[in-house]
Amino acid sequence: MSETIPHWLTKQADLVPNKKAIELYNGKAYTFHELKAASQSFARKLSQLGVKKGTHVGILSNNGIAMITAIHALSYLGAVGVLLNTRLTTNEINYQVTDAEVSILLTADECKQTADPLNVEQVYSFSDVERFTEKEIILASELCLDDTFTIIYTSGTTGFPKGVIHTYGNHWWSAIGSALNLGLNKDDKWLITLPIFHVSGLSALIKNVIYGMPIYVLEKFDVDIVHYILMNKGITIMSVVTMMVQNLLNKLGEDLYPKSLRCLLLGGGPAPKPMLEKAKSKDVPVFQSYGMTETSSQIVTLSPQDALEKIGSAGKPLFPAQLKVNQSDIYTIGEIMVKGPMVTKGYYKNEQANVNSFEEGWLATGDMGYLDHDGYLYVVDRRKDLIISGGENIYPSEVESVLSGMEQVEEVGVTGKDDDVWGQVPVAFIVKYEDVSIDEIVAFAGERLAKYKIPKEIYFVEELPRNASNKLVRSKLLDLRME
Amino acid sequence: MSETIPHWLTKQADLVPNKKAIELYNGKAYTFHELKAASQSFARKLSQLGVKKGTHVGILSNNGIAMITAIHALSYLGAVGVLLNTRLTTNEINYQVTDAEVSILLTADECKQTADPLNVEQVYSFSDVERFTEKEIILASELCLDDTFTIIYTSGTTGFPKGVIHTYGNHWWSAIGSALNLGLNKDDKWLITLPIFHVSGLSALIKNVIYGMPIYVLEKFDVDIVHYILMNKGITIMSVVTMMVQNLLNKLGEDLYPKSLRCLLLGGGPAPKPMLEKAKSKDVPVFQSYGMTETSSQIVTLSPQDALEKIGSAGKPLFPAQLKVNQSDIYTIGEIMVKGPMVTKGYYKNEQANVNSFEEGWLATGDMGYLDHDGYLYVVDRRKDLIISGGENIYPSEVESVLSGMEQVEEVGVTGKDDDVWGQVPVAFIVKYEDVSIDEIVAFAGERLAKYKIPKEIYFVEELPRNASNKLVRSKLLDLRME
Repeated sequence: MSETIPHWLTKQADLVPNKKAIELYNGKAYTFHELKAASQSFARKLSQLGVKKGTHVGILSNNGIAMITAIHALSYLGAVGVLLNTRLTTNEINYQVTDAEVSILLTADECKQTADPLNVEQVYSFSDVERFTEKEIILASELCLDDTFTIIYTSGTTGFPKGVIHTYGNHWWSAIGSALNLGLNKDDKWLITLPIFHVSGLSALIKNVIYGMPIYVLEKFDVDIVHYILMNKGITIMSVVTMMVQNLLNKLGEDLYPKSLRCLLLGGGPAPKPMLEKAKSKDVPVFQSYGMTETSSQIVTLSPQDALEKIGSAGKPLFPAQLKVNQSDIYTIGEIMVKGPMVTKGYYKNEQANVNSFEEGWLATGDMGYLDHDGYLYVVDRRKDLIISGGENIYPSEVESVLSGMEQVEEVGVTGKDDDVWGQVPVAFIVKYEDVSIDEIVAFAGERLAKYKIPKEIYFVEELPRNASNKLVRSKLLDLRME
Repeated sequence: MSETIPHWLTKQADLVPNKKAIELYNGKAYTFHELKAASQSFARKLSQLGVKKGTHVGILSNNGIAMITAIHALSYLGAVGVLLNTRLTTNEINYQVTDAEVSILLTADECKQTADPLNVEQVYSFSDVERFTEKEIILASELCLDDTFTIIYTSGTTGFPKGVIHTYGNHWWSAIGSALNLGLNKDDKWLITLPIFHVSGLSALIKNVIYGMPIYVLEKFDVDIVHYILMNKGITIMSVVTMMVQNLLNKLGEDLYPKSLRCLLLGGGPAPKPMLEKAKSKDVPVFQSYGMTETSSQIVTLSPQDALEKIGSAGKPLFPAQLKVNQSDIYTIGEIMVKGPMVTKGYYKNEQANVNSFEEGWLATGDMGYLDHDGYLYVVDRRKDLIISGGENIYPSEVESVLSGMEQVEEVGVTGKDDDVWGQVPVAFIVKYEDVSIDEIVAFAGERLAKYKIPKEIYFVEELPRNASNKLVRSKLLDLRME
């Protein structure tokens, strides 16, 4: 039976109206009462524009209070938020807003130009909406956990992004699972620098209203600012990716972080063991985790009591979650399968992807890993062939399918190469059909792909490595550079 | 959509196998691994006796490790536990086991004699079961939150007890709601002296396995023992009723409890304000709460930050819960209505009670109260006319219906009278049909009612106070003593 709970922001505003909810670097702060009032006002203005239960509303924005307010406003109307990555090209965004049937797009004021050429009927900046009058309507006082709240696109191995549906229940169970793992301390304050258009950032907004815990929100990661905040603002938990930990450790030097910092929750890809050991030597509490858009944030986390003993492991599945590796023997690599109420019920209007990914309630993640004798997960390949560059996922097949679109290109293989700055960068291997220059290829890619997806090195080769089934073997691509 | 989670005890035994789960006063302790192993073994033995999914199994026992193991064993088989109050008479228990369709009864070894005359086909003591061999069966690895786990009887105002159905989900949401209110600290340890056959004690077993938190279990409340444990055993939270707080405050004298004790969670009836003020003056952290069997434990609690400012209030509904008073004006007394995923879906096989009690998802509690201008609940009458004696509920109508069964009695009214030791005791007012002595009445009641329900004073009167609709007005009964 589907459960109904009181609207989470209204509830928190009732329980602790004067408690600080959101803190920003510009010194501004909003209590739970103020956040509720702003969100409800924004909802009434959106209603004036025709947004109602079931409307798909695109949101194109970097982190900020207007974006947070807009997301909560949608929940008061029963509308669905389609969160768009601001780093995508117009073509990429167009694919997502079309696929997700977005009828109205809200943008940060500075993103409005980007949105102009998009295939969306109505486009408004947050400031545009604020100028409307409020419509007198009844706002949602409850949330039904089976209802859809957000859709976030994730690139599939086929190269076409898939819209991951998150219900209120998915977000709820993710927040509760995390609380059962990390505990809920009355002085907790979470620092957010990851984008809210990714599930990593979004999930912090949900914890904010469910735990009644203040969050400190930055637009992006800046090591000097983040270091200052960690030193001075009573932060207890921060979500991070590898690059951030490395920068913070360098910045920290010989100092130590205040004891109040109890968890750097590390996601976004496998972590280099030397970095984890360096963190350990400085008592910086880095907890590895594993998760993806489909699991509404981390689903496997190394708990505090195991953080030191099981270094390199992503841990055990959160309390409401289950995990298995598609391989019965321990220490044997297989596909990671997950199950639990925080796992998406499916991809939006993509029956084929749903059939491929789900089996009897289990999601086949496509990621490879193994379990040790105590049942701890070690992820060996964050999805087969996936490239993670600066915390962003790059699927080789997506880049390949774009480059294949050049008439001079016969075939192409893309893989990741280690990089000191970005962790990994994409590299392309191309079999030419007719003559073409590297500059032409880069220009072609630049019109169709976000900057971080453009190959940083391009090699021309005679043929690509293929297996017996004639499938491309990406793991052998880098060897071609020797020839 | 109904959610499924991993079996909570198996999960906790996987996450923290060597952590202490249960501590007893005899010095024995059990880790989560040991508790799981014992419960699974007991389940396999019960299976030998025919217990399977859907079997209704009565449990008649005071608090102890065998009882705890038996309750978890039922969850491994998908069986339903009908928890029986050991203080009831044979007749009262017979009513419940018959109504609940109990086919097998498990008793503490020392309760087996009591169970002999009961209308149940199979009766085994816990030791009897332990002597059976284990059957090789597949135990539940998951729990479906919609499935029924326990049935606990609560006396209705009609005098007939009603079986309150608790699903796994009801228990889950109750535990989560409490965690969101009280927080989850890594050093938490809960002390249980309330009976596990009541929901107050049972809910602590559930928190034990969901939080991965040790609990210290006593068979009953003994002020000297409890005081010693609070002083020496690192207890952070304890569920209490008024009588316990009063005794503990007296015992405490001029001392203070260790700072680690962060919450005495007070339920079981309205609390005298002088006692709350005395507790406050000694920094004893008493948090008032409000709940009932139907809400799977407390559903309204005064949060830590409000405990001092709103003394006398039961607080606000837990995060997943909603509350309203059947009266639109603040400070105006009306019936208390509650809603939320921890509220029972209904009474077992009692359609009439379900129709009377539920309206559009809201449970009409029968209790009276009012809200202040900040939305805090004040309970004025813990159910109309309910008598609470030493933490046990006594429904006047139940005692009345028994006494009415004496042929010499024409009519009878029962109400509560304040008592220094028990909080309240029941008092009966009887209109005689023919001559009868007080001793005869007490003897008659003693055969049919638990000792605490037997009226402590009995008055013979000419007629009972009735209102215009000819309904008994119990609030005027005590006045008859003057005449």
